[in-house]
Amino acid sequence: MIPTITAFETSPDRGKGLARDMRVRWALEEAGQPYAVRLVSFQAMKEPAHRALQPFGQIPTYEEGDLVLFESGAIVLHIAQTRAGLLPDDAHARARAVAWMFAAVNTVEPPTLELVVARFLEGDQPWTEQRLPLIRDRIRQRLGDLSARLGEADWLDGAFSAGDLMMVGVLRRLQASGLLDEYPNLAAYVGRGEARPAFRRAFDAQLAVFAGRPATD
Amino acid sequence: MIPTITAFETSPDRGKGLARDMRVRWALEEAGQPYAVRLVSFQAMKEPAHRALQPFGQIPTYEEGDLVLFESGAIVLHIAQTRAGLLPDDAHARARAVAWMFAAVNTVEPPTLELVVARFLEGDQPWTEQRLPLIRDRIRQRLGDLSARLGEADWLDGAFSAGDLMMVGVLRRLQASGLLDEYPNLAAYVGRGEARPAFRRAFDAQLAVFAGRPATD
Repeated sequence: MIPTITAFETSPDRGKGLARDMRVRWALEEAGQPYAVRLVSFQAMKEPAHRALQPFGQIPTYEEGDLVLFESGAIVLHIAQTRAGLLPDDAHARARAVAWMFAAVNTVEPPTLELVVARFLEGDQPWTEQRLPLIRDRIRQRLGDLSARLGEADWLDGAFSAGDLMMVGVLRRLQASGLLDEYPNLAAYVGRGEARPAFRRAFDAQLAVFAGRPATD
Repeated sequence: MIPTITAFETSPDRGKGLARDMRVRWALEEAGQPYAVRLVSFQAMKEPAHRALQPFGQIPTYEEGDLVLFESGAIVLHIAQTRAGLLPDDAHARARAVAWMFAAVNTVEPPTLELVVARFLEGDQPWTEQRLPLIRDRIRQRLGDLSARLGEADWLDGAFSAGDLMMVGVLRRLQASGLLDEYPNLAAYVGRGEARPAFRRAFDAQLAVFAGRPATD
């Protein structure tokens, strides 16, 4: 049974692989699991057929037989729990890897989303220019803590895990902001993630969808 | 082996149970698992001894023998996976409950955190009054989607699960904003969560810490 995921039909980021299907593609590649992709237009994403799979009208979704999942973190965890390659065998180490998955989406990602809001939803507001330094400082707080914990290690807790996959996925969205470069060990950490063969395959697969098509923003 | 969690020594919310230790206490109560609590001051939270347990200098943490976890979502999931009462037996239903846990912290919670930022971190800024309606509309988008999915059901996917626990935990923080009351089925959903005996025990336990002490804000 080959799982089917959904992804954007047109790329909001010109194929940089910043949409959340990238995290799921990467996990599937790490696990050596072939998959199919169904592309969804921005209009179709908000219609009842898609909302039956994803209540918030977003991508990605994951269908495997009669299992339907949404939320990239939950899909990555499901892949990690049902295939080898993304979680350690030791029960305690597994629980810690899951803690890093939640830290990625619930502690590091929220302040970075403020940057997305400021740029795309409040970009034309008079206060945005003045707010940006405050937002960037809040992101720096998280990055500073993360950088201190990572130190000189390759990955957050022993071998590469789904926790690193999710954290690298979150941090990649900061590359354009320049903030990541203020923390050389975090920039190198993201580079190590991006250098993994499974990441490259996933990246190329999402890029192929958009190659030769116009970008949407 | 009784696990030990950490919680605030003084309450930023005057004992309303909005701090993230509440979610962990509730999960432990649902599972019938006794636990110990170590209180941490705001200063101690930022010191190396606590950061060794929680890299971002926050509460709660969870210690059980030589296992140390952080992130309320990860701790609740660990409790749910190692004790009965918080996840269904069927593997697909379990995966869906985990999807709701991630939806709570990564889709519904982020826009609500904007309200916290506006009130506590940018409360004195000249733009905050004008931004509030925009923030509230972004929260309404999520609440509207969630309300539509929940419909007339008691819980998000069959029986009460860790997914509901996390979602109710997130929604409770909106009660003071009045936004929850715009969605009567969500307000009733939160009410059902708060009426559970395990919730009451957890709430009373966190309140007992602060009873008779001055609030900190």
